[in-house]
This record gives sequence, structure tokens and C-alpha cells, in this order.
Amino acid sequence: MPNPTAAILIIGDEILSGRTQDTNTQFLAAELTRVGVDLQEVRVVPDTADAIVAGVNALRAQYDAVFTSGGIGPTHDDITADAIARAFGLHIDVRADALAILQERHEKLGLAVNQSRLRMARIPDGATLIENPISGAPGFTVQNVHVMAGVPTIFKAMVASVLPTITGGTPLLSQTLRIDRGEGDIAGPLAKLAADYADLSIGSYPFRQDGRFGANIVMRGHDRALIDAAMARLAALFPDDHE
Amino acid sequence: MPNPTAAILIIGDEILSGRTQDTNTQFLAAELTRVGVDLQEVRVVPDTADAIVAGVNALRAQYDAVFTSGGIGPTHDDITADAIARAFGLHIDVRADALAILQERHEKLGLAVNQSRLRMARIPDGATLIENPISGAPGFTVQNVHVMAGVPTIFKAMVASVLPTITGGTPLLSQTLRIDRGEGDIAGPLAKLAADYADLSIGSYPFRQDGRFGANIVMRGHDRALIDAAMARLAALFPDDHE
Repeated sequence: MPNPTAAILIIGDEILSGRTQDTNTQFLAAELTRVGVDLQEVRVVPDTADAIVAGVNALRAQYDAVFTSGGIGPTHDDITADAIARAFGLHIDVRADALAILQERHEKLGLAVNQSRLRMARIPDGATLIENPISGAPGFTVQNVHVMAGVPTIFKAMVASVLPTITGGTPLLSQTLRIDRGEGDIAGPLAKLAADYADLSIGSYPFRQDGRFGANIVMRGHDRALIDAAMARLAALFPDDHE
Repeated sequence: MPNPTAAILIIGDEILSGRTQDTNTQFLAAELTRVGVDLQEVRVVPDTADAIVAGVNALRAQYDAVFTSGGIGPTHDDITADAIARAFGLHIDVRADALAILQERHEKLGLAVNQSRLRMARIPDGATLIENPISGAPGFTVQNVHVMAGVPTIFKAMVASVLPTITGGTPLLSQTLRIDRGEGDIAGPLAKLAADYADLSIGSYPFRQDGRFGANIVMRGHDRALIDAAMARLAALFPDDHE
């Protein structure tokens, strides 16, 4: 059975303006690889309801799971929860279970759950809450869509809460060999090797260091023995050009 | 007139597996903001022809300009040029102008333009070449799609080559004020401010530092005086909570 598939939807004007470097994608991508879920697409869209609705509806129809990041805080630009409700045609309002979590957390901090913080308790009907051990305000899951915060520490904590609920497949294994020759010299033998090992995905990622060209050859697959065999063949092809 | 719009298509299994942190998006996003092009979407897709064709066709229909990154080297997994040709229904083969560039570059280095390197001279009919001062092998532009390398140093150099050919609009200006209070306290007054300055996009980006919550409030717009006025109002709202 093939591995389940997934997509990430990053909601963030601050990524699209270049102000902020997105790091949530790489973190979640590595986690999904580890548990055997094939991440097949990432989209970054602006903080507008139309863009979020269109993005989440396209992705949830196409992939087994969708993870969103961003836009679930207390400020006016946090519109993700309402947009997700709209995408699913669900009613949304302040929900008692989410409100109770916020009240408990804020009582401890001596803060009031004011009108703005109430916004973080808006959860679509029927959604399951995702725990947020960092700042309390929960994420939520509707069907195959997992809605999480954008702040990296909170995003990571929510991923840790939600990942055990995802049924993964065979972890994607990988090995890398660095070859200190230009890709143009590597490409011919590598293409033949890739054809011989069609069950592996073999990628070549060139770099330039101290003015010299080289490439990291990455082999990915689900069978460790097969990767080992292909790696040994690759190393033998370029005996003098790797560590 | 509204600013032209753009999308980025990142082609890269290595991003989707979590092996590599994408940095090309942030670089190009900041450059586009600077020249007045509104980046409205980013997609990351795998190194498969179907995914590249679907991605580029969706984005080029929707936005004024599309920038792609990755998959134009000499190895078997470099399939972007052929996929772009397929997306446009164009013939593709080794082209004399691209080959001449490769030959000149490789002669200087004492390297042969072998069968693999020839692959980097495959350019769709009618495409305009994008100069690559780093490693020679050019990118290319077909209609509103700019096809560039994934290696960050080469990507940046190609962006520098192609950006002067793009007609931008009014640069998007921004100012940031850090407020050392939780978003829940900021949100109410901020929503009122955002309503009063509807021509600005006002975003709140929370953070946590040394166990305390705060937020960077970012105002974006095309009118510097308007941003200055809104910033002054914001600072006056929280006189004791910013530098």
C-alpha cells in the first residue's frame, strides 16, 4: 500500500513579503518523512479569506492530510479559523471546551479573557482540538485538515500533539554521498544507476565550495538494503571523489 | 493601477523531504517587494513532470509573472526545461545560442561539453535566455514564466539578470513596531486602528522571548505618510510597551 500523502498550507503575508523566513515547512516535512507520510505539495497564500478557502479546498481534495500554519491568534488579521469553517461550510463560534482552556490558562497568568482573546476560542462545529502546551490557545482538526499556529515554537508543539493521530506508512529512508566533481561528469553514470534502481528516487544537488563544484547525491526509498546496494555502486563509480 | 502580481514555483524533492531549507523564496520575495511586484502565492512541488506542468499552468494563468527554481542541471532528475516546454506545448531541443555559452564556459575550464552537459542547452523554442554568470548554464523566459536554477547562489544571480526586465509598480513599504505585551491586549485597539487605516495592511506577528509574550506590528502600504501617521497612532496607544 502506498504511503499516505500530505500537503502544507502556509498562511502568511509576512512570508510573501520576504520579511520572514518560513521554517515550519522544513520542520514538518522532516517529521512527515520520519513517520512515512509523503509530503507532496506546499503552498504559501496571503492572509485573505478567499485565498485560504481556495487553498485548503484544493489541497484537502487532493491529499490525505493537510496541515495549515498561521492566522489563529487574537488579532484582526487572524482569520484562519473562520476561513476554514467557510471552506467546510461549518458553523463557527466561541466553543465552551476551547474557552475553558483559555480561561484556565489566563487565570494562572492573571490575565482576563477579553473580547480579543475570545477570538482564539472560535472553533468550527465538530472540530477536534489540538493541544497547545506553549500558550494555551488550541489548534483544531476538521476531517483531514489540521489547523495550527504560525509561531514556530507553538507550531512545533502542535505538530507533536497531532502527529500521533496520523497513521503513517513506511518511513522514507535516505542516504547521501558527497561527490567532489562537477555534476556534468557525474550525470552520465548516475543516470544509468538511476535506471538500474528504479524503485529508488535518486537526486543530485549541486553545490559550489571554494570555487569548486560538487554534488550531494541523495537516494531515497523504503528498502534499506536496496539503498545500501545502490550507494555502494555509486561509491565504486567515483572512487577518488568522495570521502 | 494595481501592482503586477507574481507567484514562485519551487521544484524540489529535497524541500518536500525536509532535507533542505528553502531560502530562494525569501530572497526573491524581498526583491519583488522592493520593485513593486505583489507576490501572491508560492508552491513547492516534487521533481515530476506532471506536478511541474500542473503547477506552472495553474500559476501562469492566474498571475502576471511566475518564477521557477530548480531542476535545470545536467542530471537525470533535472526535468524542468522539458516540463515547461510541455506546459506551453513548445518544441524543445539543444539550442545553438545556449550551447555556444556552455562551450565557451567549459573550454575555459578545460572541460568537455559531454552528453550530460548538453542537457543544459535544451531550451524551448522562442524562449529568451537568462544569464548565469556563476556557472554558465542559462535559465530562460517563456512568456510570463522565468525558469531559474535551484542552487541559491545561481538563483540569486539569475534573479539579478531577470529582474530588470520586469515592470514593477509602487514598492510596498513597511514599518515595524515591537510591542512588549501579549497579542490579546494589543488586539482590540489594533483592530480599531486597522479599520481607521483601511488602505494599509496591518499584521501582528507574536513572539515569545525569555518567557514573555510580545508582537511585532507590521504596517504595509504604498503611501509613506499614511504609514507614518498610523505608526504614530500605534505608538501612542502603547506608550510604555515599545522602545
